[in-house]
Amino acid sequence: MTTRSLWAWGTIDRFPDDATRRRLAGMARMLTGGAEPALLPLPRDEDARVPAARVAAPATLAALASATERDRALHAHGRAYPDLVRGFRGDFAAAPDLVLRPRDAAEVEACLDWCSRARVACVPFGGGTSVVGGVEVAAERRGDFAGVAALDLERLDGLHEVDATSLAVRVGAGILGPALERALAAHQLTLRHYPQSFEHSTLGGWIATRAGGHFATGPTHIDDFVEALVAITPRGRVETRRLPASGAGPAPERLWIGSEGALGVITEAWMRVQRRPRFRAAASVKFRTTHDGARAARALAQSGLRPANCRLLDPAECMLHQVALDGTAVLLVGFESADHDQAPWLARALELARDHGGTIASGPTITDDGPGGAAGAAAGPPGAAAGGPAGEAGTWKRAFVDAPYLQSALVSIGVMADTFETACTWDRFEAFHAAVTGAAQDALRRTVGGGVVACRFTHVSPDGPAPYYTFLGPARVGDELAVWREVKAAVSEALHAAGGTITHHHAVGRTHRPWYDRERPPLFGEVLRAAKRALDPAGVLNPGALID
Amino acid sequence: MTTRSLWAWGTIDRFPDDATRRRLAGMARMLTGGAEPALLPLPRDEDARVPAARVAAPATLAALASATERDRALHAHGRAYPDLVRGFRGDFAAAPDLVLRPRDAAEVEACLDWCSRARVACVPFGGGTSVVGGVEVAAERRGDFAGVAALDLERLDGLHEVDATSLAVRVGAGILGPALERALAAHQLTLRHYPQSFEHSTLGGWIATRAGGHFATGPTHIDDFVEALVAITPRGRVETRRLPASGAGPAPERLWIGSEGALGVITEAWMRVQRRPRFRAAASVKFRTTHDGARAARALAQSGLRPANCRLLDPAECMLHQVALDGTAVLLVGFESADHDQAPWLARALELARDHGGTIASGPTITDDGPGGAAGAAAGPPGAAAGGPAGEAGTWKRAFVDAPYLQSALVSIGVMADTFETACTWDRFEAFHAAVTGAAQDALRRTVGGGVVACRFTHVSPDGPAPYYTFLGPARVGDELAVWREVKAAVSEALHAAGGTITHHHAVGRTHRPWYDRERPPLFGEVLRAAKRALDPAGVLNPGALID
Repeated sequence: MTTRSLWAWGTIDRFPDDATRRRLAGMARMLTGGAEPALLPLPRDEDARVPAARVAAPATLAALASATERDRALHAHGRAYPDLVRGFRGDFAAAPDLVLRPRDAAEVEACLDWCSRARVACVPFGGGTSVVGGVEVAAERRGDFAGVAALDLERLDGLHEVDATSLAVRVGAGILGPALERALAAHQLTLRHYPQSFEHSTLGGWIATRAGGHFATGPTHIDDFVEALVAITPRGRVETRRLPASGAGPAPERLWIGSEGALGVITEAWMRVQRRPRFRAAASVKFRTTHDGARAARALAQSGLRPANCRLLDPAECMLHQVALDGTAVLLVGFESADHDQAPWLARALELARDHGGTIASGPTITDDGPGGAAGAAAGPPGAAAGGPAGEAGTWKRAFVDAPYLQSALVSIGVMADTFETACTWDRFEAFHAAVTGAAQDALRRTVGGGVVACRFTHVSPDGPAPYYTFLGPARVGDELAVWREVKAAVSEALHAAGGTITHHHAVGRTHRPWYDRERPPLFGEVLRAAKRALDPAGVLNPGALID
Repeated sequence: MTTRSLWAWGTIDRFPDDATRRRLAGMARMLTGGAEPALLPLPRDEDARVPAARVAAPATLAALASATERDRALHAHGRAYPDLVRGFRGDFAAAPDLVLRPRDAAEVEACLDWCSRARVACVPFGGGTSVVGGVEVAAERRGDFAGVAALDLERLDGLHEVDATSLAVRVGAGILGPALERALAAHQLTLRHYPQSFEHSTLGGWIATRAGGHFATGPTHIDDFVEALVAITPRGRVETRRLPASGAGPAPERLWIGSEGALGVITEAWMRVQRRPRFRAAASVKFRTTHDGARAARALAQSGLRPANCRLLDPAECMLHQVALDGTAVLLVGFESADHDQAPWLARALELARDHGGTIASGPTITDDGPGGAAGAAAGPPGAAAGGPAGEAGTWKRAFVDAPYLQSALVSIGVMADTFETACTWDRFEAFHAAVTGAAQDALRRTVGGGVVACRFTHVSPDGPAPYYTFLGPARVGDELAVWREVKAAVSEALHAAGGTITHHHAVGRTHRPWYDRERPPLFGEVLRAAKRALDPAGVLNPGALID
């Protein structure tokens, strides 16, 4: 049963069972204090409330269209906390009026033509895992349109060309992570891009939202993997040239990378791929405090060693993921290569970690999977498959892919659990972290009496980390959305004021708009609006996402 | 005498003397056949023909303005071959009517205000080393304006802030390469960005033209060093936020990186810097053919080793630079780090080179300059200072900074010498190289009876190289410009048709427009024009560069 859940993360078969929910309830009580949360009854599909459709597909698009309630409900939301809460309640008021599933770029053009002429808002839809309201036209904007169509790109899912010489492949934008990695594995290649949503998100979604992969340094934002792309706009097709690099004017592909469906529909891309890693070297290092660990992470980020993993977990994060329970911070360090033994790299990294007060907690583990790399890594992030690494890194990595399932399960026991992420320069980090953590804790105290705030670094650059925060607290049942909005506003305000970005890799969507609009230079906003007018004169593409 | 030459590259004191010119003449005869070129008399400053100015600065800008003939002549051209030829003839018909030298961003705003109101074309001017007509309003466009002002940014030259924690600095855009490196050296830091124009070009110019540095892999385009920037447009100020990375919408700074003065004037930037390299490891490897060497360069580019140098010289390039005279191709491989010994990196690189048929010609040379790095590298590219590396790499590196002086000297003995550069994917390279070299040789035969075409890789990416071509032939005196235009058109057409980019790092300017306009997706062109209308409603910023 790999059926997609109507309301929760992922597929029904992997939703945590009642024993797991009870274990979570016990853990939540321990972490947030108060009474042990009760297991709420799970929603039934037949109770989902989907409004009547306002518009239907024209005959010319009938073959691509679906208007079943289930299909519309599946395209109503992303998978942010407020999406889970509404889905759990059976509230699918945000459902589009129809779903269109074009089979090629020409059919995408036909869909955009109809939407522009009929003034139907068109929401490009990849895997539907947005955590920022990226696939939902706001209630107050829907009246501006005759209706809303979800443009589901799942049929654009082929691996079309493999250039093994240049290590680049041409891929349809609708392909899901596991299908892409399976297709590449047949050529001993990998994109090696593992966002936490990997199993349920698509290449086109990654590009449109500037997704961040699992790896800590080097190419990790999807931006750096895009060699060329094709986007269909209401004004026609955009195709950039396959080039390893160019200095000819502002980079054209960068306008669509991060355009969140507002400036065109990405239908395919030439992506830079890699040979499958063969050599690995990993260890974990404990630090007395988060800031000791942060200084070591900084030294590593500035060393030029480019570790694949350089993930600092603060004490609360270590506890949440049961990596360490003694109040220390843990830094997971790992190197990978298809070409050469990584032992000298790791040795120097551990020297740097020790110079900054670290003590080795596990490892070093040096492995050589042999020519072609490990078979187990084909369809998931490192460590997700059988045979993943043992120790802290293994524990943490298994938790990585399961975390979104746990978030859904927490909603089903009346616990508020959400994450937010950012990036800032190293010089600011200590004050930044104090301000953001303080704002989150204050907001939790004010709204629900308190909770837990944890932090890890998902990525590190020479000039700064990307801190990723998790917060947990008891939900105020019936009032979950208002509470969440208050906490979200408080932390967003704090990270904006402290000099961070409103998003390092979750995108802007609609949720982050108020802070994005202040972060973005006003004249750049004018340029984006001018670009929108030039490419989408009827203004039907994902209205309200990114720009107005 | 570090006076800037009116017509030639760089400063008067470093212009090659008559003995050098005679040696070049002998070499030219050997390379291109025919009679030995004669030393033409060098032009005298007093013979420069500068037209009467059409417009003068208003009283409010008088303190910033200069209208001397010498100043106007110095801002008439870049330093492309046709610029050298016209300058050599004393033809400064392209001179701007005045030169404005603002001292801060507010004065830049005042200059743009006046230009917009008075309909004076405004050409941002850094070091004036453009090789693509980037700083010269075309004769046929000048009539659209009341006049032309060069906006010389030399006074915006400070190192304003140093963030040693995040390894980032805030710098004025008008600073020249050596001044910037001297200022950074006081903090044990380096930008480590050495375009061939390094001594005479500016930070703002590098950003506006997407300059490429000396290093072969990793961060080498200026794009990757820009953390944040400030640009002044006729509509006001744009300031992007200091962030190590962000996923909030299309990257705003990318619109101005490569905007060539057409979308605003870059006045300062936060740049990512590095600790000064201490550990070095280098060697050179010979290959029987260019394509054998190219396969080795590809293996290196795809290995993840990220060599600082991975410069393949074809046999003709080896001869021009006297690196090897036996018809072999030479690959210069080097590694640098501020943090750790590079011997294991080089050892693996040489293994890969040997696997592809290479034989070590010199090295490996492993050095440790001690804490703080080598003092000699402070004010120039590696190898330019005393104590640079010996052997093929040293010979080549010394030639690197002198090459533009030699080009000017060749003009003064009636030899046509120019370069063009591009990038393409590895799968195309062999056919691409044959087509481009063939087109260049055909054009030289057709126009001047033949010449020399040489190629090197300046940069290598995992998905493709950046080939850089030099061509030499006897000039047809009096008819140099028509001949050059024919050769330039032939090679540009060939590299466009064969799937390359019209420029990897020389920019578009006006010279590359016909091919850039075809390389750029048409709808992206519309977006750029919409951006231009939004930011520069009067259309006065560098008209004709990049867009109309």
